[in-house]
Amino acid sequence: MFQKIITSQLNPPRFLLLIFLVFITVGTMLLKLPFATTDGITIIDAFFTATSALTVTGLIVVDTGTAFTLFGQVVIILLIQIGGLGIMTFAVFIFLMSGRKLGFKEHVLITQSLNQNSVGGIILLARKILLFSLAVEFITFILLCVFWIPVFGWKNGVYASFFHAVSAFNNAGFSIWSDSLSSFIDHSFIMVIITTSFIVGGVGFTVIFDIWKKKRFKDFSLHTKLMLVGTLLINLIAFCFVFLLEYYNLDTLGGLSIIDKIKAAYFQAVTPRTAGFNTVDIGALNHSTLFFMIILMFIGAGSASTGGGIKLTTFFAIMFSVLSFVKKKEDIEVFRRSISDRTVVRSLAITVIGFSFILVGIFILDITEDAPFLKIVFEAVSAFGTVGLSMGLTGELTWVGKLIIPMIMIIGKVGPLTLAFALANQPKVRVRYAKEDILTG
Amino acid sequence: MFQKIITSQLNPPRFLLLIFLVFITVGTMLLKLPFATTDGITIIDAFFTATSALTVTGLIVVDTGTAFTLFGQVVIILLIQIGGLGIMTFAVFIFLMSGRKLGFKEHVLITQSLNQNSVGGIILLARKILLFSLAVEFITFILLCVFWIPVFGWKNGVYASFFHAVSAFNNAGFSIWSDSLSSFIDHSFIMVIITTSFIVGGVGFTVIFDIWKKKRFKDFSLHTKLMLVGTLLINLIAFCFVFLLEYYNLDTLGGLSIIDKIKAAYFQAVTPRTAGFNTVDIGALNHSTLFFMIILMFIGAGSASTGGGIKLTTFFAIMFSVLSFVKKKEDIEVFRRSISDRTVVRSLAITVIGFSFILVGIFILDITEDAPFLKIVFEAVSAFGTVGLSMGLTGELTWVGKLIIPMIMIIGKVGPLTLAFALANQPKVRVRYAKEDILTG
Ligand SMILES: [K+]
Ligand SMILES: [K+]
Repeated sequence: MFQKIITSQLNPPRFLLLIFLVFITVGTMLLKLPFATTDGITIIDAFFTATSALTVTGLIVVDTGTAFTLFGQVVIILLIQIGGLGIMTFAVFIFLMSGRKLGFKEHVLITQSLNQNSVGGIILLARKILLFSLAVEFITFILLCVFWIPVFGWKNGVYASFFHAVSAFNNAGFSIWSDSLSSFIDHSFIMVIITTSFIVGGVGFTVIFDIWKKKRFKDFSLHTKLMLVGTLLINLIAFCFVFLLEYYNLDTLGGLSIIDKIKAAYFQAVTPRTAGFNTVDIGALNHSTLFFMIILMFIGAGSASTGGGIKLTTFFAIMFSVLSFVKKKEDIEVFRRSISDRTVVRSLAITVIGFSFILVGIFILDITEDAPFLKIVFEAVSAFGTVGLSMGLTGELTWVGKLIIPMIMIIGKVGPLTLAFALANQPKVRVRYAKEDILTG
Repeated sequence: MFQKIITSQLNPPRFLLLIFLVFITVGTMLLKLPFATTDGITIIDAFFTATSALTVTGLIVVDTGTAFTLFGQVVIILLIQIGGLGIMTFAVFIFLMSGRKLGFKEHVLITQSLNQNSVGGIILLARKILLFSLAVEFITFILLCVFWIPVFGWKNGVYASFFHAVSAFNNAGFSIWSDSLSSFIDHSFIMVIITTSFIVGGVGFTVIFDIWKKKRFKDFSLHTKLMLVGTLLINLIAFCFVFLLEYYNLDTLGGLSIIDKIKAAYFQAVTPRTAGFNTVDIGALNHSTLFFMIILMFIGAGSASTGGGIKLTTFFAIMFSVLSFVKKKEDIEVFRRSISDRTVVRSLAITVIGFSFILVGIFILDITEDAPFLKIVFEAVSAFGTVGLSMGLTGELTWVGKLIIPMIMIIGKVGPLTLAFALANQPKVRVRYAKEDILTG
């Protein structure tokens, strides 16, 4: 059947979208099984949870730790693992397991959905991604066990470590505790383990493998350099903003010691670009901090990573292009390389389409949900960035909201451009017209 | 002195910005004169009012009709007239009056700030703009007199007609009545006169002159075609949205008859793209309607018009470019013409810079103002689009807010790109680097 779908008329983006929807349907059905939940669940809540897990978002309509049985939680963590690896990496893995060889069409499908330029070595890449993911998850798991087994005992400690290791590396933001990681706000080691794990997961596989292979910064690809410097810079700026803006807020950092303020600010600064765990009450943050976080959530993590959003490099490509234009430079220069116009137009398309989907989502939610505007915007952008932070709207959503938010999650995870390609018709042969300028601005 | 400034090292954008600030300073001083106000005014409120008038925004911190004397109101209407004509058209007019000839440098200054491509005939254009403006204002004035003299008597009727004619054509949104035009919500003729006047003013001089010269649609320039079809389309969509969203809202359209609903919805649909008059209480509109209006205000009116925002053609250029990219077309085609990549990059720059300024503004206002997020966003975008609609925040602004909002007005009126050029350093000769692609999205 798999073979049949691929060899049919489906283009890669449509195929990717289809396989996504299949996984969500299966996930929904599994979570709806009587023994998946302690007290039953509506079909729409099961759909919401399955989508949130597969897109590694982490927004929840029911409490993961109490509403789901062990079986339900394992379904969730499996969906997270599949979504985090990337649906297509997972498909490659299935192929490898079944012992079959990939044809040209399958190669194209997989390379496109993995955002890779070359077809060669794609199976090798998939294997590398899988091994790397499992390795980091395993290390995270072991380190968490060291701290949590003494606290929770063998059985619960191992399980909590396993669940949060997978959830952290895949930037899923799911937690078996209803207050997320708030109890560990002052526990430095847990914070370092979790944040390192999700930053490594969020920077993107291509970056990790480039560093592994080339070792020295000056040999890295432009993409890797941009991601490394960019991630560092944006996290630093975010830390300063959260720290300063929340310094006197008694509901968040205000009551903490200066050291704990730094720890909590760091955690809350690095998490909005896709991880989605929280150690402070998001709803209690200042409006300015929340607005700043909305921008971070929209930007998101790295390309070909476990995260969502328009992606950090997309953001930089647009910024650099605008700067070049204002400075009347002919080329867009970064690290002694120039970015092509095509990359800029591609970035523009991603941003505009993503932004448009969010606008439509916010507009509909404004009609259906009885909530402040900021709460709605925060929720919608959190879904798009597959972040999972919430000011508390998730639990109050109407059934329309419970359909709209998962749709935004899917757009954020599949990528606005991939989705647009999936929906667009194939181009026809056409005449070319004369150029004519229009006035703008 | 004028000559000396021009021949100095100032580039056109810097010069434009400077002359803007000079006019605002003069306006502030005039409004601060004891006989300009009935009861005195703080310097910051005078600054706010002068900026709001010169940028034809219409946001007000004091009531125009009661706080200002006739002298103060005349200062305001003069600032509106200068700002509406365009500072540079006004400068050309001063030159003509003084009998001097324009040098090449002055030509370049004026062509650039008028958004014109050719240097030739610029004086002719300035004269045409002035005559056209005065003509439409005069017609609007006469028509308003017909209805208002019987109601308000000769003196007050003539004055009200004069004030609102100038304010309407220049899309200023200032009114001598504290409830704007709310008393005329069901008066069809007043509505038609006012809206026609500000739509003509907001479509842009180049469009008007193109229509005048060419007569037939198929002969029009691409810019004119886009503006005509675009204005019609966006107003139609806006009408449908406002009508449907507010149909049952008892605080706005709900209590009106179906005919009055249509009238009021039409008025409130065409005004957000820059005119800024209102006939219903903006604060009472649904969140969805307000959010939709925010998008309209950001887009704004036509290039080289009396309005602000990123401009309708900028918006279309980006939309068409994204559509072409998604459909994998090589050219960006509109009306059997193709738009150049340079236009797209220019549009991108305008939008991103404008958007960034607004984001920074909203962020600061989130810290300083104690108001709901939607109210702040609405106010900031209203200032950027030089629209002048408000959910009521203007009257409650702190002194920081009273500085930030006028700054956003100036950015919206001068244009984000012009401002960016004014602030940017001149390019140096530089090496060109090899192209390298990065992953985006
Ligand atoms: K997440
Ligand atoms: K206005």
